[in-house]
Amino acid sequence: MKIIVQKFGGTSVADATRMKAAAKRAVEEYSAGNKVVVVVSAQGKMTDELLEMAYEINNEPSARELDSLLSTGEQMSSALMAMAIHSLGVPAVSFTGRQIGMTTDSIHTKARIVNINGDRILGELTENKIVVVAGYQGVDENDNITTLGRGGSDTSAVALAALLKADMCDIFTDVDGIYTADPRTVPDARRLNKISYDEILELASMGAQVVHVRSIEFAKKYNVPIRVRPSFNNGTGTLICKEVREMENIVVSGATVSKNDAKITLIGVSDEPGQAANIFHELAKEKINVDMIIQNISANGLTDLTFTVDKGDLALALETAKRTKGEIKAKEIVADDKIAKLSVVGIGMRSHCGIAEKMFKTLSDEKINIQMISTSEIKISCIIEEKQAEKALNAVHKAFVLDQEQ
Amino acid sequence: MKIIVQKFGGTSVADATRMKAAAKRAVEEYSAGNKVVVVVSAQGKMTDELLEMAYEINNEPSARELDSLLSTGEQMSSALMAMAIHSLGVPAVSFTGRQIGMTTDSIHTKARIVNINGDRILGELTENKIVVVAGYQGVDENDNITTLGRGGSDTSAVALAALLKADMCDIFTDVDGIYTADPRTVPDARRLNKISYDEILELASMGAQVVHVRSIEFAKKYNVPIRVRPSFNNGTGTLICKEVREMENIVVSGATVSKNDAKITLIGVSDEPGQAANIFHELAKEKINVDMIIQNISANGLTDLTFTVDKGDLALALETAKRTKGEIKAKEIVADDKIAKLSVVGIGMRSHCGIAEKMFKTLSDEKINIQMISTSEIKISCIIEEKQAEKALNAVHKAFVLDQEQ
Repeated sequence: MKIIVQKFGGTSVADATRMKAAAKRAVEEYSAGNKVVVVVSAQGKMTDELLEMAYEINNEPSARELDSLLSTGEQMSSALMAMAIHSLGVPAVSFTGRQIGMTTDSIHTKARIVNINGDRILGELTENKIVVVAGYQGVDENDNITTLGRGGSDTSAVALAALLKADMCDIFTDVDGIYTADPRTVPDARRLNKISYDEILELASMGAQVVHVRSIEFAKKYNVPIRVRPSFNNGTGTLICKEVREMENIVVSGATVSKNDAKITLIGVSDEPGQAANIFHELAKEKINVDMIIQNISANGLTDLTFTVDKGDLALALETAKRTKGEIKAKEIVADDKIAKLSVVGIGMRSHCGIAEKMFKTLSDEKINIQMISTSEIKISCIIEEKQAEKALNAVHKAFVLDQEQ
Repeated sequence: MKIIVQKFGGTSVADATRMKAAAKRAVEEYSAGNKVVVVVSAQGKMTDELLEMAYEINNEPSARELDSLLSTGEQMSSALMAMAIHSLGVPAVSFTGRQIGMTTDSIHTKARIVNINGDRILGELTENKIVVVAGYQGVDENDNITTLGRGGSDTSAVALAALLKADMCDIFTDVDGIYTADPRTVPDARRLNKISYDEILELASMGAQVVHVRSIEFAKKYNVPIRVRPSFNNGTGTLICKEVREMENIVVSGATVSKNDAKITLIGVSDEPGQAANIFHELAKEKINVDMIIQNISANGLTDLTFTVDKGDLALALETAKRTKGEIKAKEIVADDKIAKLSVVGIGMRSHCGIAEKMFKTLSDEKINIQMISTSEIKISCIIEEKQAEKALNAVHKAFVLDQEQ
């Protein structure tokens, strides 16, 4: 007997037909002799509709009241899912986040889980019921309803899987699994059978958001195996798990390109200690995240300083830079939001040399200029011109033979 | 400083505009220096939509899951109402039934209130907030969500008013108040300024369902004054309160006609002790409520027995009667669902004679045949032919001068 947690996203429970199909999935695991916990999101566009209702009434709705409002979407889904399972002749019971003792901090709309009291779930599982849980929600210590923010239902599912020491946390979604690159950009992209937490964290934070970063962090911490599976067919999807030896043979697992960054260059900064720190101190005060930083070789005591920020922060970052221009003695400030960040990720990089070289040569062969570079243990990222993004991704995907199983 | 409970029904919170108008009502009481608790129903057709979703998935949905599903409607309204009050610059906080400690028994879809823990409401009122409560819902002792059945939000409001010893429980609705008769049938019908619990109970159970019977019973038990008020204008509505001396001068407060009954006659029943009891015992076993019963004068040891049941129960009642026909030695069974029950209600009847006589004479003058009669301390009902219902109601309304203040 295994314990299986299944999470169904909004599109997988969008209407009666899909709800029933999802229920069938749960019943299949149950009939195979497993204990099954189902975590559901709100149906289809429900969350958006509730938000619209709220903003029609108050353009700055209270976060506490928003949480109470939005949590109803998942509660509805959970009750309907239990009914759908009943219609297949299997006992099931639905619970809200609070009913299963999902306690969070009090940061409304992006609460963090503090504790889960598993007694009630375990009791119902012992009575051979499928337990259906409303995802995305909890209560704080004062019994106020909270929600876990973007991707919150994934986090609920992984947290429950961790609590129950589940054998698997299946995340059903509208894609086949995790790919070596975005298939819309790279026709040759291949579905990965397996990927490590660290790799998916690097890929996810770079825009391949099939599963939310926070739930992966959670899964990594508690070593919960996650399988990202398609809800509309029987594909096996992609297993996300801790690093295993065989993964080290795979040098590069995936490649991705994101267009969420913008670049700011301070030209002719006086090359004195502490000048750079000054501008980053000011940016931090404005809560602007700086991603990559490079400083060119100094000539005549002057240097050029370039850094990237989120596109959404560009205006504020530029304003901040201009405000401190005199202070840091910069001659000129230029910005560029027509850039892309191309990255390759792979645990095998740790033990293999020449990955960076191969990436740079590939881009060079394609006449793609590299503007900035940053590397981590398992990732290499290059900033390039935005319009070359797709060409670059395809070239790198091909160079590392990602279309073929290694 | 007074404590005011305001209840807004589904049409009064159906959309953003109406929600804001309702919020304004609450803020007006608050600004006048009162403590205000607002109880809300689900918006407009929300409950019907949720039911439709449920039945699309399972044609016999579990009562427990239905309660969890349906309770979301009121929870949504309560959060939106709090936001609407915030937009008027007044502090407010919304609560689900459970959050205010509304404990019920475990009879899902028609639970009864067992207890309310007022601590949280009182705490928030002390902090000068308007407290918004999701009506219609509670939790049982095992923390399962329950709902209070039809008219449940009225019951929530009255129960809270009783708990808080509120000075008034305002029930905002889409009618002007309680009328001497249904204005759609009787153009001369007049809005009552005041009516007693007992009278409204008789009127409500006979079809004038502006406020639900159960909440009136609750109000009577705890002596909570209720005012039925229009939500779309500033009308003062009708006060429902305990009997006061002035009411006794008003002989008849209202008249009503209902078409919900059907009549069954057992012809030629052997007039022996216990025969009648037999049929009523069988009907009771089928959970069929029998309303009026008459037995004609016996001739030759035979008698005719007539009784009325709810129209919806007619088929089952007939079947039951036919099954026991031999046993009770009835010659024939005839049914008639083309009947109406005309009633006049008034506390003053207790101390005034001649009311029945006047009613019978009025009907006789109109050539309306009376088929059955039943009386209570404050009510007289006659079964008449259905097609004469409107004529009869108007005649009686006129005979008792109900169109004029007495």
